[in-house]
Amino acid sequence: MNYGVIIKVLGNLLLVESGLMIPSLLVAIYYNQTDKLAFLYSIIITGIIGLIMSKCFKNKKGIKAKEGLAIVAFGWILASFFGSLPFIFSGSIPSWVDAFFETVSGFTTTGATIVDNVEALPNGILFWRSFTHWIGGMGILVFTIAILPTLGVGGFQIFKVESPGPMPDRIVPRVKDTAKILYTTYIIITFIEIILLLFGGMSLFDSAVHTFGTVGTGGFSVKNSSVGAYDSTYIHLVIGIFMMLSGINFSLYYSLSKGKWREVLKDEELRLYLGIITAAVILIAYNINKNMYHDIGLSLRDSFFQVSSIITTTGYATVDFDKWPTFSKGILFLLMFVGGCAGSTGGGMKNIRILVLLKLIKREVAKIFHPRAVIPIKTGDKVVPNETVASISSFFILYIIIFVLGTIVISLEGIDFESSAGAVAATLGNVGPGLGLVGPARTYSQFSKLGKMTLSVFMLLGRLELFTIIALFAPKTWKKEILSKNV
Amino acid sequence: MNYGVIIKVLGNLLLVESGLMIPSLLVAIYYNQTDKLAFLYSIIITGIIGLIMSKCFKNKKGIKAKEGLAIVAFGWILASFFGSLPFIFSGSIPSWVDAFFETVSGFTTTGATIVDNVEALPNGILFWRSFTHWIGGMGILVFTIAILPTLGVGGFQIFKVESPGPMPDRIVPRVKDTAKILYTTYIIITFIEIILLLFGGMSLFDSAVHTFGTVGTGGFSVKNSSVGAYDSTYIHLVIGIFMMLSGINFSLYYSLSKGKWREVLKDEELRLYLGIITAAVILIAYNINKNMYHDIGLSLRDSFFQVSSIITTTGYATVDFDKWPTFSKGILFLLMFVGGCAGSTGGGMKNIRILVLLKLIKREVAKIFHPRAVIPIKTGDKVVPNETVASISSFFILYIIIFVLGTIVISLEGIDFESSAGAVAATLGNVGPGLGLVGPARTYSQFSKLGKMTLSVFMLLGRLELFTIIALFAPKTWKKEILSKNV
Repeated sequence: MNYGVIIKVLGNLLLVESGLMIPSLLVAIYYNQTDKLAFLYSIIITGIIGLIMSKCFKNKKGIKAKEGLAIVAFGWILASFFGSLPFIFSGSIPSWVDAFFETVSGFTTTGATIVDNVEALPNGILFWRSFTHWIGGMGILVFTIAILPTLGVGGFQIFKVESPGPMPDRIVPRVKDTAKILYTTYIIITFIEIILLLFGGMSLFDSAVHTFGTVGTGGFSVKNSSVGAYDSTYIHLVIGIFMMLSGINFSLYYSLSKGKWREVLKDEELRLYLGIITAAVILIAYNINKNMYHDIGLSLRDSFFQVSSIITTTGYATVDFDKWPTFSKGILFLLMFVGGCAGSTGGGMKNIRILVLLKLIKREVAKIFHPRAVIPIKTGDKVVPNETVASISSFFILYIIIFVLGTIVISLEGIDFESSAGAVAATLGNVGPGLGLVGPARTYSQFSKLGKMTLSVFMLLGRLELFTIIALFAPKTWKKEILSKNV
Repeated sequence: MNYGVIIKVLGNLLLVESGLMIPSLLVAIYYNQTDKLAFLYSIIITGIIGLIMSKCFKNKKGIKAKEGLAIVAFGWILASFFGSLPFIFSGSIPSWVDAFFETVSGFTTTGATIVDNVEALPNGILFWRSFTHWIGGMGILVFTIAILPTLGVGGFQIFKVESPGPMPDRIVPRVKDTAKILYTTYIIITFIEIILLLFGGMSLFDSAVHTFGTVGTGGFSVKNSSVGAYDSTYIHLVIGIFMMLSGINFSLYYSLSKGKWREVLKDEELRLYLGIITAAVILIAYNINKNMYHDIGLSLRDSFFQVSSIITTTGYATVDFDKWPTFSKGILFLLMFVGGCAGSTGGGMKNIRILVLLKLIKREVAKIFHPRAVIPIKTGDKVVPNETVASISSFFILYIIIFVLGTIVISLEGIDFESSAGAVAATLGNVGPGLGLVGPARTYSQFSKLGKMTLSVFMLLGRLELFTIIALFAPKTWKKEILSKNV
């Protein structure tokens, strides 16, 4: 393992994170609240440690697969650790475990909170909390790649590990340019949503934080009752639609900007994603209308918001969907696993994986009739290599295994089945609110320290798509002799 | 499709089923209860229809994959239909839907019952109900193969479809001989258990029906409180151990009888199966001892019985495990999915599939470090072909998809999440009792007719391992032009 380059890149990452805290400091200064010094200290500490790590080690060799993996895994843990400093220093979240949980939840765009009364927090802290969603959504390391002059070779290794989806690809040949295009798109969408929310009568502060939560598909709100606090169909619709847009592969927006409409419309993953949303909205609207609402317009509005929120793994809520009938809750629970599209800010398994696996099953049925036929699996016109299919299958199976074992472990907290399954599905899928005791009207403050740490690991596992974190614990990662053959 | 051979074999199947009802008739005559005539009528009707089907069609060609599939799928539906006649004729279960549910539950060795007071049923009916477990456990068509003079070629196609597990193989070259060996082993185990239960002070009748439920891993009891009605550690242990033995691949008993101890001890599936049982027994015993029992001996006894019952998908209960802590319930729930070994009478996904999938995940982790390496997956010394791995992956994924969608559909019955998930897991895995409203102290009588039919389909899907039933609904099965290429 080339430790020099790992420490150097991680140092750069901390430097960038230190810089990313400056807007929150400015907010704190503007509102002149108690959290000003907390940000100043956090920026200085994070910056100095970043500087030392960045300068004292030399980038001897390039970044290979192994280093990319280590950088991303440690990068996220480190960023969460330093990102939790403002919460601790300001006294907003005095416990280290709680602050770490909240920051991991922020960066992984989960949006699960341990803060019972969020409205009591100072604005700088609230801004930072939501801003972590924005940074984590598109990837903090991808951001580092985009703005820093050079990482040397191997930026693609990092990009590959951090970008969600089974087959991340560069939009343009250079990774740095790809990162820039992604962030430019991201910034444009962010500005549009802020402006639209301002039109709806939201304050600039509320618009900004809710936009970070939306486009990063995070879900932290500054209101205890989440988006439900804004009694405006317009605001519900704007946030609902922007959540949905943020769950779409960002490279499709680039195709759009190049006028490639046909390519976008033909995208099979997009079609599946929109198809699932449509089906879920209709089924849930019908179910809640029949059992509770008796108002089809309102049913459709609330169904759409919750479906969009859960499938994109954002986790905003306009109503307490935990009180909905089991059928509707069941569909939402299923959506927690589906998640957004590859290359979006959404979590979960990603639609492209579901698509490939459905085709795998279709092929298996076809093989009953043609046992010796070789039938390739295609998405669009492209054949998905058997290796990738096997890799996607493993991902699905591992995801289910972690979910099931996780549910059993978390049930040791003394909670019921549904709450335990909900907590694990919601953290592993980076959703935020789950079901039962972790429903949208509750928080995660009820868990023990060990429970919170375990759930933090699930959030990281989900955001970095399992294998990155698993590989970190594999003995092979740390065996020198085997490594030297491959590095 | 060669319809002639399908109808002919199905006719033979009904003839055999008609014969298999005779012991129940004898029991009814012995106890001189109201169900005598019901069996007489059922035997005559089933026999005559079987005879007509068997004689009026000629076995023109052999049995290929497609015919094997159709024979097994229709065979099970037909056998369940005619097997439900005694319940209806005797008035024990007057509703057609209920009687069909109960018979499917019997043949598929599920053991889910709609009878709220089973102790009120006549003995002939109770005997038949449990005997369906015994027949279904090893496979009613395999039995037909074993006893009928000839099926023509293609018995292996039927054997392959009906035998549980991803890669069923003949023990000896001829399928007929394999079927005979399997049934001989089965009969020997059956007799041993009956004798051991008699030693424990059980009546011959109770010993016989509980043995059928044990070795077939079915779970129908003649007591409302299941095996819990017998307050004897000896009986709990005998049934517990024989459930475990019935979940082991029967070909291993043949190896044992040939003195191949080493081969058996090296069997990776057996090791995984016993390992899971050991781990589950210890974890649950610890959990229930700490929270409820405060008696480690009793905890181990009850933990072992329930673990053995659930992993083999039998479904007998000595206690109401639905009242256990969520952690213990969670482990039992997981075991419903694991199931027994391939080639056993147990249901669920089968340990061999879990084994292969764990190895697939292990390979995926290894590939992070050696992206270009070709690493074969092995069980024992044999390489599992990539096609088989893909097929096992599809099975797992489809199983999960059916479970999740099934849970959502069944929740329309107006029940909670846990009960709905429990009902689907317990029927799909052929377990019987689930959780919550379908826990071991309850029955399935609460479901609507539609709900019961849906759950019956899940039981058949589980027993015939998904694809057989799915293929039946695939348009390709019924398209003539495509078929003619393959038949």
